[in-house]
Amino acid sequence: MTASTNGAAPDLSRLSLNQKTVNAATVPEVVELCRATGIGSVGLWREPVADFGLQATVDLVAEAGLRVSSLCRGGWFTATGAAFEEAIASNHAAIDEAAALEADCLCLVVGGLPAGSRDLSGARRQVAKALEVLVPHATEAGVKLALEPMNPIYAADRGVLSTLEQALDLAAPYSADVVGVMADTYHVWWDPKLPQQLLRAGNEGRLLSYQICDWITPLPVDTLLARGMMGDGHIDFESTTRWVTEAGYTGDIEVEIFNADIWAADPRQVVDTMIERYASLVAPYAG
Amino acid sequence: MTASTNGAAPDLSRLSLNQKTVNAATVPEVVELCRATGIGSVGLWREPVADFGLQATVDLVAEAGLRVSSLCRGGWFTATGAAFEEAIASNHAAIDEAAALEADCLCLVVGGLPAGSRDLSGARRQVAKALEVLVPHATEAGVKLALEPMNPIYAADRGVLSTLEQALDLAAPYSADVVGVMADTYHVWWDPKLPQQLLRAGNEGRLLSYQICDWITPLPVDTLLARGMMGDGHIDFESTTRWVTEAGYTGDIEVEIFNADIWAADPRQVVDTMIERYASLVAPYAG
Repeated sequence: MTASTNGAAPDLSRLSLNQKTVNAATVPEVVELCRATGIGSVGLWREPVADFGLQATVDLVAEAGLRVSSLCRGGWFTATGAAFEEAIASNHAAIDEAAALEADCLCLVVGGLPAGSRDLSGARRQVAKALEVLVPHATEAGVKLALEPMNPIYAADRGVLSTLEQALDLAAPYSADVVGVMADTYHVWWDPKLPQQLLRAGNEGRLLSYQICDWITPLPVDTLLARGMMGDGHIDFESTTRWVTEAGYTGDIEVEIFNADIWAADPRQVVDTMIERYASLVAPYAG
Repeated sequence: MTASTNGAAPDLSRLSLNQKTVNAATVPEVVELCRATGIGSVGLWREPVADFGLQATVDLVAEAGLRVSSLCRGGWFTATGAAFEEAIASNHAAIDEAAALEADCLCLVVGGLPAGSRDLSGARRQVAKALEVLVPHATEAGVKLALEPMNPIYAADRGVLSTLEQALDLAAPYSADVVGVMADTYHVWWDPKLPQQLLRAGNEGRLLSYQICDWITPLPVDTLLARGMMGDGHIDFESTTRWVTEAGYTGDIEVEIFNADIWAADPRQVVDTMIERYASLVAPYAG
């Protein structure tokens, strides 16, 4: 693959730093990393935003001229009883936070099987039910809900939503102004129907977010932290980025990496590497 | 879930012991385990069959009155150049062995991405090409080729074939007398289209094998050995077995478990546990 930069500074206006990639960084530190490097957008997480303060984050992001590509995360809908009601309450709060931050979308990680349950179909129905409850609030708040299909490696314990096709089917009853999908390369790279379902998402106006990181082998011991920097693994970012672009996606391209080694590294070095890989492996194919 | 046995000896005529479940056992030891417990069928692997001798295995299995539910395995088609030709030669030999053993099918694990390659579509085309080369020989030998979709956790390094739908699409150009699919619960349990694609496989006459084991979490460090005994994980064997049965499958139900703890245990105890779990979790729903 070739670098697009030819020595010139790469265009980072569509690059987004998801703060999970520099996991130990506070909101001000993440904003400063973006400002110092010319990254145009940031993906925020609710917990560090709460730590710094919602209004303070809104102000800081505005002052830095950054967009918020996503707020992570709502979801965890597969609990039952009181835990389900708690999850719904938490998601209502997340919608308000996403509205305040003017985030492009609220990321929904739907949750795995309830403890001791093997009822996968039931858990999936629970997700549909939660969506039904949340859509009116999201509509009113002007927040787009982004269903995130997850790699089947997490089907039991994190996300019973496994493919873009399934996510789009789940979104179908609702306006594309309110419910769409995220495509995270780590979760969807293996899908034989990926190009087709990306195009469908674009045609339906539901492709809300393009997240990138790599699939590395052997998988680290903690498979939650199995994501790699682009270029370190097996994913073809050229093809995937072309498909996303052909689907009409012009939004931010967000790098979200869960990886113990990357989390232990110097955040600025991580961001510099991320920029370099983005510029050579992704940006040239992003239209 | 309820046991079907009510104190009576369970019917094990459709149960098959894949010899990988008792990994250290030789062919005679595996056959003896089946004979001693009343298991009706055995899934064999090429390497231990070669160790004991092909004709000796044919004779021993016949003498024991066992069926051979599958021969594992052909495949590894995604290599290029000379390695591809070697793989094809090995698959030709596997077809002859499957014919000699009168195996219900030859299991095909198609292989992952070639080293250093990120061309997933290309690897998948390579599988189609290999199939085209092998079908005439399989037809002549009367051997059914069973494409095994693998859990996407293995898409990079073991199997670029990821769903039953994809496997059935790949099989479609060929007679159902020669090319079909295997459904292994570990690989397909998460698939939102599982019931639909099992039914399709049945309708097309291509459901050649039903393999069972469980998806356990947390995943063991070596994810190749991440399979669990039925009942130890998250898979709903009742629903899956009902779907397989509704798809018209009346063949053997083969237990194939890769798991270091199970491999280290006493083989007879493993088989006894397997029988107990099969009788309570699977057999009642197998029609």
